[in-house]
Amino acid sequence: MKRIADSTVRRLSMYLRYLEDLDTRGQATASSDELAHLCGTTPAQVRKDLSFFGSFGKRGLGYPVHELTAHLREILGLGQEWKVIIVGAGKIGAALANYRGFRQRGFTVVGVYDSDPAKVGTPWGASTVRAMQDLTTDVAREGASIAVLAIPSENAQAVVDTIVGAGIRAILNFAPTQITVPPHVSLKSVNMAMELEGLSFALTNAELIDQGAA
Amino acid sequence: MKRIADSTVRRLSMYLRYLEDLDTRGQATASSDELAHLCGTTPAQVRKDLSFFGSFGKRGLGYPVHELTAHLREILGLGQEWKVIIVGAGKIGAALANYRGFRQRGFTVVGVYDSDPAKVGTPWGASTVRAMQDLTTDVAREGASIAVLAIPSENAQAVVDTIVGAGIRAILNFAPTQITVPPHVSLKSVNMAMELEGLSFALTNAELIDQGAA
Repeated sequence: MKRIADSTVRRLSMYLRYLEDLDTRGQATASSDELAHLCGTTPAQVRKDLSFFGSFGKRGLGYPVHELTAHLREILGLGQEWKVIIVGAGKIGAALANYRGFRQRGFTVVGVYDSDPAKVGTPWGASTVRAMQDLTTDVAREGASIAVLAIPSENAQAVVDTIVGAGIRAILNFAPTQITVPPHVSLKSVNMAMELEGLSFALTNAELIDQGAA
Repeated sequence: MKRIADSTVRRLSMYLRYLEDLDTRGQATASSDELAHLCGTTPAQVRKDLSFFGSFGKRGLGYPVHELTAHLREILGLGQEWKVIIVGAGKIGAALANYRGFRQRGFTVVGVYDSDPAKVGTPWGASTVRAMQDLTTDVAREGASIAVLAIPSENAQAVVDTIVGAGIRAILNFAPTQITVPPHVSLKSVNMAMELEGLSFALTNAELIDQGAA
């Protein structure tokens, strides 16, 4: 079977957002033109992205909003609860732990960890910050599969090795460094300094920017 | 002149990080093989990315680390200070304002704004949170060109219209919604729920993932 690019998955997430919105407002069908307009892409791209997962909608009638919403939720693996640990009890960790969007999509934070003894045991929402030494047994007991890495660059790889060893199969990395994971582990990195550098590049080289790829 | 994709600019940022590291450690030259290995890409990709901006290095000798570092900094627009405002004095705003990586790359936060009267005037580092009504005159006076948007989705577009009207030319958007900007404004969006959805997709559809595009 053909493999799916990261950019396609991002568009599926975006279609889902708008479809949920249309569904809430009671709209029964949506055309590829409408979805394309809402998501900033082309109708052909919408049709191509959705056709990958089966045949939706009828020519000339548009997509059935409620059905397609349910199907996209299933495709994106949002029909179940995902247990998430946050490693790093700093400001980024706090911002993420409180992020409404996570809970709304079925991501439950089951533990927050820090290597700093001064932070371990301090209050964190309804719970407390846990010690890194407890991570492996906690992950096994609670069945966590996703880790958010919100730590400085130093020792990031050692922390990754620990959480992968504990059974974590997907990592969202905010540490501003390159980390490596075994093939069975999924990794996404968000590097905020690099995002800003993309903007400074754009401000400096306005004529070179491919807006379509931005 | 050919336009440059966002993914190329990200790789240039990454090359720069490793070259700075090599430069600090006193290494005089680096091969495309070495850079490719450090950055998780191919030597051919490294050569293609760098050739776009001129002829660097000599065949068989590798790239001169110090020179290429300086050149990449210039290409990325990092030779100058960029003044940044943060809109939204919540946890994400706080995490970003304190992010060491920003200051290290020449991005200076000159003001933090919030529409909540309860937050306006409260301490924020060495300064205080400012009112949205002051944004337009502040941006003009201080010459800020980049805004980080760390607000909820509601009214995000209205805030964008205000800051674009104030003269901001580049926006890093953390609001989990689609916003539109005029063609002369650069926009990058980081949607953390969508990043997590990419991971839940990967966990659910392991066989469909294009690891090369992740």
